[in-house]
Amino acid sequence: MLTREQCEDLDRSDPLASFRNEFELPDDVIYLDGNSLGPLPKKAKERAREVVEQEWGQDLIKSWNKAGWFELCERLGNKIAGLVGAGPGEVIVCDNTSINLFKVLSLALDMKADRRKILMEGSNFPTDVYVAQGLAKHLGYGHEVIFAEREQLLDAITEDVAVVSLVHVHYKTGRIQDVKAIAEKARSVGALVVWDLCHSTGAVPVDLEDWKADFAVGCGYKYLNGGPGAPAFIYVAKRHQGRFRQPLDGWWSHKAPFEFARDYEPAEDIWQMMTGTQPILSMALLEVGVDMMARADMGLMREKSKRLGDLFIQLIDEKLDGYGFEIVSPREADERGSQVSLTHDCGFAIIQALIEKNIIGDFRAPDILRFGFAPLYVRYSDIWDTVECLEEIMRKNLWNLPEYQAKAAVT
Amino acid sequence: MLTREQCEDLDRSDPLASFRNEFELPDDVIYLDGNSLGPLPKKAKERAREVVEQEWGQDLIKSWNKAGWFELCERLGNKIAGLVGAGPGEVIVCDNTSINLFKVLSLALDMKADRRKILMEGSNFPTDVYVAQGLAKHLGYGHEVIFAEREQLLDAITEDVAVVSLVHVHYKTGRIQDVKAIAEKARSVGALVVWDLCHSTGAVPVDLEDWKADFAVGCGYKYLNGGPGAPAFIYVAKRHQGRFRQPLDGWWSHKAPFEFARDYEPAEDIWQMMTGTQPILSMALLEVGVDMMARADMGLMREKSKRLGDLFIQLIDEKLDGYGFEIVSPREADERGSQVSLTHDCGFAIIQALIEKNIIGDFRAPDILRFGFAPLYVRYSDIWDTVECLEEIMRKNLWNLPEYQAKAAVT
Repeated sequence: MLTREQCEDLDRSDPLASFRNEFELPDDVIYLDGNSLGPLPKKAKERAREVVEQEWGQDLIKSWNKAGWFELCERLGNKIAGLVGAGPGEVIVCDNTSINLFKVLSLALDMKADRRKILMEGSNFPTDVYVAQGLAKHLGYGHEVIFAEREQLLDAITEDVAVVSLVHVHYKTGRIQDVKAIAEKARSVGALVVWDLCHSTGAVPVDLEDWKADFAVGCGYKYLNGGPGAPAFIYVAKRHQGRFRQPLDGWWSHKAPFEFARDYEPAEDIWQMMTGTQPILSMALLEVGVDMMARADMGLMREKSKRLGDLFIQLIDEKLDGYGFEIVSPREADERGSQVSLTHDCGFAIIQALIEKNIIGDFRAPDILRFGFAPLYVRYSDIWDTVECLEEIMRKNLWNLPEYQAKAAVT
Repeated sequence: MLTREQCEDLDRSDPLASFRNEFELPDDVIYLDGNSLGPLPKKAKERAREVVEQEWGQDLIKSWNKAGWFELCERLGNKIAGLVGAGPGEVIVCDNTSINLFKVLSLALDMKADRRKILMEGSNFPTDVYVAQGLAKHLGYGHEVIFAEREQLLDAITEDVAVVSLVHVHYKTGRIQDVKAIAEKARSVGALVVWDLCHSTGAVPVDLEDWKADFAVGCGYKYLNGGPGAPAFIYVAKRHQGRFRQPLDGWWSHKAPFEFARDYEPAEDIWQMMTGTQPILSMALLEVGVDMMARADMGLMREKSKRLGDLFIQLIDEKLDGYGFEIVSPREADERGSQVSLTHDCGFAIIQALIEKNIIGDFRAPDILRFGFAPLYVRYSDIWDTVECLEEIMRKNLWNLPEYQAKAAVT
């Protein structure tokens, strides 16, 4: 049996421990929801003041050049490229994941004009499916979104599939896709692959070049700690740039935006994926999170993340047996992203009770309790305290209060 | 002949004068570029700290409910509705103008499935044209963007036009479109109308209900003073909601986003125009600008804006005769938005020389000098000083310096 002292020992010898001090985390909170919204880096506080008070307030319109606002999407893209194994000029930051997925899926369908099928996982984050369905309906050429789950995925990648569009780390279970097998099968039948990296960037190793990836999208507000609704990114492999067009043309994707020419001519590089003016304040704070992530060693992060998950699973097994929880994330750490999910029939009420104790996880309908273990600020002792608290909630029936039941009814 | 004292008198009796103190404007700057980026409201400084440090930093994920982040796009939409003569539930805030135009144009083409023409002004802000051209190409059904300029516009609105998509106030000349005539002609031939309100919202009276408008888009960072790249808005008349679908489907436009259902079902209200997660920091600061605008009387603003423009034109006539300037904005104030534009062959160098003197206007290729007169913070004496400075620059040839010529060569 483990002890809290052993967890504290692990914290003391944690090579990533110093990163926690770079975040503005409330003292009494255990934050296990960085897979939904990463916490505030302390430097982002200063940066916010600088952007608002100096760059906007004092330098006004000049900041588009002087403070590099216009190039920010590209500069930040290149920094994120370094986190996902992409090369310079292959990533750009803009808009949100859904809109960016629309752009790359449009581009992919354009490249595979003789095919009509988009293959997705029906169980994964639904916005990806909605975007594909909306695009298919909009085009009106009989495109179809077809579904396969993990075990059936490889067989479903056939010669009539235009594009395989998958989330790398499953938003509910945390299961990591078998990228290499999928990429190889897709290549063998001539299908393109789009990776949604929302739950992987800054959490698990991603190597787009090694994967021979075609396209990818990902978000800035989870493990990159970019702030609420921080802009998203788009990856387009160099070999696919300058040949096809995404449809959301705007002046930021024009070859010469400041010529204000009447007719559209696309940029031939990654700027072609842009559309219009970007939310500079949100984007500037994302840069702080990305800069911090660039200093963290992915090998160490992955190692700690796996150990945090393993510890959680071990403690759940030891302390919560018989309370009706089931672990739905892979028990094998290599198959798991930086989260562990449980199911429980009363999951919603249990998460509410936990949040009441200042331990923040989240709930995903119908019955999933999600715990994210971001290695830059989650401690081994946090895992211990979380499971202790869960055990107390179950033992004392603290979740079974009328107010939590009422909230469950309206969710 | 006017005097500076007369301008100062006008400032002293200006009923809007107190608004200037609500902005963080550098003392030594005359800011005539609010038509490109509005200045920082002082309250936005405090709001930025609150959103970043309290809502993100301390309350973390809970702020999506507790601080109303999720509903912000709708709440802010309703506030903007009040500024543009729209009803509750007809406006929502999200993304940028170009992307929002893509959504409403898609919707309009869907509603007019038997027509193929999109009518636009070729001389106006090009991103609107680019979006329409991108959409037409993407659909691949032979849609075509056709062009007509002001005098020819009404005749060009014929029975094969699906949608007339126009900028309300011209970005270069400041000329206001004849909305009523265009709307009437469009209605008579069964065409829909989209208004781009980027240069009108917060600057000239807009009454979408009175105009019987179909759709509109507009931006948050110009006269609404929402900050660099602040999100844009979309207006869809109630009568057009719930019947057709824009193609950028995402979880934020789903009927029940938190059910995480596999298949897309559109919201039936203005939320259908959403796509994905919004940049909350940028959006929260836009609310400050919108709240201030809601307190300002549009009648007084319009009156002052016209007088500022008239004063500028009068002084240009008096003091800059013979220096090669031409006034390209309408001399008749009722036909003009809140800006006056001049042309000059050496316009770029002259604007640089003016900026060097801390008077900020802007330049639009090939030869336009643009001066925006936002009535909440521009003073009559600023107009006087600007023309005095322009006169000095011309008289002393201050624009004709090698560094300005070099910059012109690379722009």
